[in-house]
This record gives sequence, C-alpha cells and structure tokens, in this order.
Amino acid sequence: MVTDKVGAIIAAAGRGERMGGVDKMLALLGGKPVLARVIATFEGCKAIDQIVVVVSQENVEQAKKLIDEHKWSKVTEVCPGGELRQDSVAAGLKRLEDCDWVVIHDGARPLVTADLIERGLKAAKEGGAAVAAVPVVDTIKIADDNQIVRQTLMRDWLWAAQTPQVFRFDIIAKAYPPAEGEVTDDATLVERLGYQVKLYSGAYDNIKITTPDDLILAEVLYRKYGR
Amino acid sequence: MVTDKVGAIIAAAGRGERMGGVDKMLALLGGKPVLARVIATFEGCKAIDQIVVVVSQENVEQAKKLIDEHKWSKVTEVCPGGELRQDSVAAGLKRLEDCDWVVIHDGARPLVTADLIERGLKAAKEGGAAVAAVPVVDTIKIADDNQIVRQTLMRDWLWAAQTPQVFRFDIIAKAYPPAEGEVTDDATLVERLGYQVKLYSGAYDNIKITTPDDLILAEVLYRKYGR
Repeated sequence: MVTDKVGAIIAAAGRGERMGGVDKMLALLGGKPVLARVIATFEGCKAIDQIVVVVSQENVEQAKKLIDEHKWSKVTEVCPGGELRQDSVAAGLKRLEDCDWVVIHDGARPLVTADLIERGLKAAKEGGAAVAAVPVVDTIKIADDNQIVRQTLMRDWLWAAQTPQVFRFDIIAKAYPPAEGEVTDDATLVERLGYQVKLYSGAYDNIKITTPDDLILAEVLYRKYGR
Repeated sequence: MVTDKVGAIIAAAGRGERMGGVDKMLALLGGKPVLARVIATFEGCKAIDQIVVVVSQENVEQAKKLIDEHKWSKVTEVCPGGELRQDSVAAGLKRLEDCDWVVIHDGARPLVTADLIERGLKAAKEGGAAVAAVPVVDTIKIADDNQIVRQTLMRDWLWAAQTPQVFRFDIIAKAYPPAEGEVTDDATLVERLGYQVKLYSGAYDNIKITTPDDLILAEVLYRKYGR
C-alpha cells in the first residue's frame, strides 16, 4: 500500500512590524522560543513526514542550531524567506516537490496542536483544500474611505481564517508564484483558481502573535492548557 | 449658553454563556468587579452627565451597593435588563429621555477609557452616530452551510465594531424597540433607518469579556496599562 506523503511549511520569516523590536520567532513561550514550540508540534504529529522551516535570513543559523539541539528528524531544510510571506511559502514549496499534501502554517501561531493539523489533512482530503477557521465573534462593518459605514455583515456566515491551511500539492503548486500584490492567505489564491476550499474548526486559542500583548496572552494560554 | 446633555447606558445584563458559570460583571479585574471598573470610567469622564446601569435581575442589589460604596453621583438609576441585549438598551433609553446624546457601552468591555468615550461623542456630533471600531486583522471568509468558502473579503475595508456607540437621542430613540430578532449592535439599527454612522478609532485592548480566557487577558492588559 502506498501512503500519501505529507510535507509541512512553517512560514516564520515575518518581520513582526508591530512587535516593538522583539523578534517574535525567538521570543520565549513557556521557556522555549516560539519557533521551537511550533516545530516541536509538527515533529510530534504522526501525520507529518517532512518539515521545511522558512525563517528570516538572520535567523537561519539560530533555527539550525535549535533543530540540531532537539534532534528533530523530520526537518529536512531550513531556508531563508523573501520579502513577502508568499516568497517564503514559494521557497518552501520548491523543497516539497515529492509530497502529495502540503500543510502551511504560520510560525507565529505557536499554540497549534497535532490534532488541529490532522483534522486539517482529513478535511483537505475531501476536496483538495482546507483551512482552519473560527466563527467571527465581532460585528463586522464595511466602511468607505471616510469611515462611513456602508454595510454591516451577517455574522452567521463569517469565518476568521487561521492556519494550518492544507492543500493537495498540485493545487497549491498551481497557485504559486502568485501574481503581483501581497498575499497573506494561501487559500485565497486557491479560491481564485476556482478550487473548492473547505473550512474546518480551528481554535480561538490558536492565536497569531503580532503584538507584544499577543505574546503575553500566548504565555497565559500556554500555561493554562500546555501543549 | 445651553450645553447638550449626555447620558450613558451601561448594558451589563448579559448572562455570559461562554463564561463557564462565572458572572463576568462581578468577576474581579485589578481587585475590583468588572462592573465597577466600567462605571468608574464613565463617572470620571467629564463629558458624561448621567449614567443608567442595566444589570441582570439578580445583580441589581449588588450593583446598587457598589454605587453607594463608591459614591458615584452620576448614576441615576440601576435597572434590570430583559432577556435580550436590546431589552436592556430599551430600558436604559426610557430613563434618559431628557438627554441630547446617548453613549451605549457594553459592561463587558471594562478597559474603556474616558478618551474613547469623548472621541466617540466628538465623532457622533459630525453626523449623529458614531461607533468605535478597529481594522480587522484576520482574513475573513464567507462560507455556505457546508463550510465551503464562497468569498474572501477585501480586508482593507473591514472594521470590527466595539462600544462605545454614540447617538443623538432622537436617532437612537427611533431605532428602539427593534423589530423581531436579536440585535447585538445598536448601530446596525440606526444604519437600517438610513442614518449615516461614522466609525472612529477604537482600541485593540478595548476587549469584550466573553470567555474566562478574556478575563485573564483583561487582567494582563489592566496591569500593563492601568486605567
């Protein structure tokens, strides 16, 4: 029996412009760098065969050191990302060409769990693409340039996308490299190609660290739930 | 010179279904009940002339006690809310009929500041209605009943509404009582009547406490920034 091969891209090259000078990937969470928390979860997830870690140029050596220290055997490559997030994902995709499925995850979401990854793979296998998402709790309004409300959206149908985002390799490969413009969500590219993207249940505590306050919250959640 | 009279409704009757049995209004934040934090901020805001506090039936006595203890002189009434949030706001509006402007605020947003209230009033005076809001940071998707993505929204125009929401009295009075259905956002009712609603800059740390984790985050933010 031939089993599908599953690769993971950990996109961790972000500059973290709202972090006030702190490198969020190397910031400590439960006493270990955020980046180490994320890699450890993917390494420990049975469904994952191979991991590519994409970091900023200045963190390449540090990341390699972490991986050596922890003897993470699934990490086949640490490579530098580009200026935009999509450059990092593109760099990761090139290194996973023999995989059947690709799990893309933001390095800044360190509270991901093996369960979340595995459920993403299961959902993706239904139609080729799946995205972790949670129901939106805020009231969302669309405003014009003068900040006058044009519309309040029906909350029942709104979802906030997270990562993991999981794709059949050939589908996500078609989406890359994207046409011009900055892309913050891989699924959007796949949607544009006309593929069906399935949402599956993410977690409210699968937060993305973008500010120093988020890092504090992540620490609180980490201590509370462990990982 | 006649100055406009400004009333505030603190809508604090919510049951907090996701709080795991903790009464979020009486939970402590920096050693004082959440409800006390909110009232203290409105009491201390120079722009506010009168405050009506709407709480659950079982918290009426406790709220009155808090107000007596703190000698908050602007609170003219503590009244019980109804089953839905809109019942609470309607109850509050009845008691502010001699006001020119009404500031509606969720009791579960204890990190509100006097500055946020005052900027809301200023914005409302431009066109009659203003809502605190922050740019949406998540990627928002619209999905169908099968959780298949139908659309990814252009993030640049999306805002997450908060409170304070500020209205000219006659405008919000026309919106109440709303037709059937549950209403979680007062501005939506005003928009439906065709009035222009202006968004003004809220604050990411003006969080709404809906889960026990939110309460932990609020405590962290409170210690960090004070109020």
